[in-house]
Amino acid sequence: MPGTVTLVVCTTCRLPGADPAAPRDGARLSDALTAQGVPHRQQACLSACARGCAVALCAPGKFTYVQGGLDPERDIPDLLAYATDYARAPDGIVPWRSRPEVIRKNTIARIPPLEA
Amino acid sequence: MPGTVTLVVCTTCRLPGADPAAPRDGARLSDALTAQGVPHRQQACLSACARGCAVALCAPGKFTYVQGGLDPERDIPDLLAYATDYARAPDGIVPWRSRPEVIRKNTIARIPPLEA
Repeated sequence: MPGTVTLVVCTTCRLPGADPAAPRDGARLSDALTAQGVPHRQQACLSACARGCAVALCAPGKFTYVQGGLDPERDIPDLLAYATDYARAPDGIVPWRSRPEVIRKNTIARIPPLEA
Repeated sequence: MPGTVTLVVCTTCRLPGADPAAPRDGARLSDALTAQGVPHRQQACLSACARGCAVALCAPGKFTYVQGGLDPERDIPDLLAYATDYARAPDGIVPWRSRPEVIRKNTIARIPPLEA
């Protein structure tokens, strides 16, 4: 992922229905990304708790996107493909049809770039 | 509201169950804020469509907060009170007990400041 893009990973997220005694799914997502060498920033809570695991993609001059519903075991390839397309899109808006299904179905919010 | 805080208002939002033929509630929220002299930025869609009306509060060095569930007729005083407290909070994190109920119950996401 290009250095101008920041991937923020919520480390306190749980997948819906997760065992509250199990390790937090967001921390597992962060660990799995680290194991794959994917730079990211950890954040204890993105206030999207009902829709974990959640991440945010941010870059100067682009829309910020908050995405949820990410399963650490299943969705990292889709997340990284989307992040790559996000990095390539000048405004951060990836064409709808190019977005992986887990991304399309779990966009929580977007915030316009304030510099614009 | 201090000039360093940007209030972004989704103009395409509808309240849950709104008449699809009626004017969009987000546009009505924006109009009502304008009528009260509240500076804000309009955005066609914050991708939080299931939880309208939605806004974002942003400021340099602070958490960005995305809030939903705002009724243009009912919730502007609470939104403005919260925005004032947000402006005063160095990191944008308003103490939980100080947040109006509509804010507490309808926080959609928060994103940490990337400068930090």
